[in-house]
Amino acid sequence: MTRTEDTIRIGLLGAGSVGAQVARTLVEEREMISARVGTPVRLVGVAVRDPEAPRDWRIPGELLTTDAEALVDQADVIVELIGGLEPAAGLIDRALRRGAAVVTGNKALLATRGAELNAVAAEHGGVLRYEASVGGAIPILRPIEESLSGDRVVKVMGIVNGTTNYILDQMDSTGAAFDDALAEAQRLGFAEADPTSDVAGRDAAAKAAILSTLAFHAPYSLDDVHCEGITEVTQEDIEAAAMSGYVIKLLAIAEKQTEGAVLRVHPTLLPRTHPLASVRGAFNAVFVVAENAGELMFYGQGAGGRPTSSAIMGDLVAVARRLRAPLAESPTISSEVQLPALPIEKATTQYYIDMDVADREGVIAEIAHVLAEHHVSIESMRQPGVVTTEGEVEDSDNGAKVQIVTHLAREKDLQETVDALHALDVVKTVNSVLRVEVEK
Amino acid sequence: MTRTEDTIRIGLLGAGSVGAQVARTLVEEREMISARVGTPVRLVGVAVRDPEAPRDWRIPGELLTTDAEALVDQADVIVELIGGLEPAAGLIDRALRRGAAVVTGNKALLATRGAELNAVAAEHGGVLRYEASVGGAIPILRPIEESLSGDRVVKVMGIVNGTTNYILDQMDSTGAAFDDALAEAQRLGFAEADPTSDVAGRDAAAKAAILSTLAFHAPYSLDDVHCEGITEVTQEDIEAAAMSGYVIKLLAIAEKQTEGAVLRVHPTLLPRTHPLASVRGAFNAVFVVAENAGELMFYGQGAGGRPTSSAIMGDLVAVARRLRAPLAESPTISSEVQLPALPIEKATTQYYIDMDVADREGVIAEIAHVLAEHHVSIESMRQPGVVTTEGEVEDSDNGAKVQIVTHLAREKDLQETVDALHALDVVKTVNSVLRVEVEK
Repeated sequence: MTRTEDTIRIGLLGAGSVGAQVARTLVEEREMISARVGTPVRLVGVAVRDPEAPRDWRIPGELLTTDAEALVDQADVIVELIGGLEPAAGLIDRALRRGAAVVTGNKALLATRGAELNAVAAEHGGVLRYEASVGGAIPILRPIEESLSGDRVVKVMGIVNGTTNYILDQMDSTGAAFDDALAEAQRLGFAEADPTSDVAGRDAAAKAAILSTLAFHAPYSLDDVHCEGITEVTQEDIEAAAMSGYVIKLLAIAEKQTEGAVLRVHPTLLPRTHPLASVRGAFNAVFVVAENAGELMFYGQGAGGRPTSSAIMGDLVAVARRLRAPLAESPTISSEVQLPALPIEKATTQYYIDMDVADREGVIAEIAHVLAEHHVSIESMRQPGVVTTEGEVEDSDNGAKVQIVTHLAREKDLQETVDALHALDVVKTVNSVLRVEVEK
Repeated sequence: MTRTEDTIRIGLLGAGSVGAQVARTLVEEREMISARVGTPVRLVGVAVRDPEAPRDWRIPGELLTTDAEALVDQADVIVELIGGLEPAAGLIDRALRRGAAVVTGNKALLATRGAELNAVAAEHGGVLRYEASVGGAIPILRPIEESLSGDRVVKVMGIVNGTTNYILDQMDSTGAAFDDALAEAQRLGFAEADPTSDVAGRDAAAKAAILSTLAFHAPYSLDDVHCEGITEVTQEDIEAAAMSGYVIKLLAIAEKQTEGAVLRVHPTLLPRTHPLASVRGAFNAVFVVAENAGELMFYGQGAGGRPTSSAIMGDLVAVARRLRAPLAESPTISSEVQLPALPIEKATTQYYIDMDVADREGVIAEIAHVLAEHHVSIESMRQPGVVTTEGEVEDSDNGAKVQIVTHLAREKDLQETVDALHALDVVKTVNSVLRVEVEK
């Protein structure tokens, strides 16, 4: 294992779906990650129970080890993705006592022993980051901890468990019974073989404890969270709720009161117009209300190897930047190859074209021909009737309207198309050319 | 001006709507802010042009000064809220050369001279933070810069100008013409007396440049952004778009291509089902798509004194924490009075109660009486007909269903209410008791 003084050594504990993605990024994207940190980073080892086990990404054999403690003792940043209480807790404790940085997504551990581990970190100069423990890829802990650090959070309310959201969503949208929706979630990989922790609300309760600790600046644990799962939610409940305009969601809620904070996880009726009501499938979303900021919402993928690995890598780069240069701010501009700004002619998007045309045979064919000539294809076309001031559709002699939405096209081609349309005899005026974004 | 060695001195430049809120927070919430930082902070001065001008919050006279340079030279953290290019740029440059930390919301300055100021900061050990420059209260720059630092952003797409969003929203929902919607926005304070920068898209373009720089790790400026405003959007465009299922929004879009990045601001057709389509009035929202994280959305108040002051204060606390202890992580638990976790009985929420009752006169009165006795008031009540398996509503002899949604009530009162309902002769079964969240 080579090592130069300024290389930051990363040790990875666990290589499940998230761990395999983290390993892949650290190996395949090593140059990008090093540029973002400002100094070389190197994955020095991956501790696993069984080096032969199949993985989502094939980790180079020389990185695999079964000696987690030895790996912890030689890395600057330890990424813990074993999950559960032990041996994860012991390894994290060991790393923090060495003054190392630890990045983890272990919500069960943080919700039960977070205060203790944070104290160990503070005492020994270690660093503990855990963005991936709540909301998967969604940046939610850092915004609460840093962006809202000068404000007073009064309420946090979120859909933080994708399994239960998927099940409730299926029950609501397809009329499925709980057991059938759960079986479908298991088939699709949205629920584990033993779904107890999810459906009983314990996973959401752990996340509620973590969110509350950061939001209210006081140490809360799983025991402080009132927890009801979704096992007793019936199809009848969902139908009755729907008839009154509600949808049932499993929410984690942390609410500040004068004398304390109430932390609770339970099935909740939400009006269908509520922004959280439209969070579908395995997505997560967290509402935060703060005194000055008002209402904020954070939305994204709450689970899965790749999304969760994004949060892990964000913490990893952030702590590595500070190991490199504690006083410096994050480098705004990294040493990666810089993407030049391109002129608008290079934009690729869909377009909407509204024009007045002569009302005679062959007009559409002429227009379609012009578009085809310029490599612009048509997604949809409308010829709305001309509406008179009396609201009647008039079969006008003098002209008609054509509205076209194109497929993805180059701005340059579009501009040439519009020029050519202007030049057509059958086109009286091009009223509007607007860009369309269909994808997010 | 007293000063102890470990007190962090804050100098505020400008006392408009945001500045006045920042001053208020620093004075009225000094204890909380100091606890969050981990060391005392003190507002040592507020530089203004006219000390006599009326302000949203009355700044103590002894803090006011007209000598901005002298204030810059004696503060550890300078909060620049003057806006515009000069004298803001000169004062920020002066502070950074002293190695001080600067917090600003000055998007026009950052979009034109951001790269230069970041370079000055890097050279002299200064710090430059500007979360408030995009999206008001929404934490968006820090998530992109830090949380996504180990991922590859491929697209950023946002509603980042509240004035134009309000105008387009009014045109869409009320059928107002552009001029009337603008006048209404001005009357309500959503648009400035001179709205040119907003309606021409320049404000959004400045934000696009800032977002792109952080998302793509390369220095972009206002000149790199293709910019079209909303002045040419007609009521006819909006109606035609609506007829095809679209809504028109002014979007700032930064998109990565193989050979570069296209940065653009223009009116855009969005399907009404798109999450950005439902962002109403003066709210802002930013979509971010990254390779591993997938789709993320950030939503909140994009402007206003209090929301924007939240972002300024977040940056201020974050930089002050690092001045105090560069190596330490942010304190998870601050020395504020800690809110104890309360038992669920202390929760206050609305409730939904579904029960089967005897179908005879006086049942509703008996139930209502029980609720009133326990200080639980009724928001709505339904008696859905009993539906047979043939789908017909049956006028059943043997019973009926009652569904109640209460107003806000204490969990303890609710539990006692449910016990009392169980004990009523006329109540056959209480099928479901679920909590309801109507507010965000």
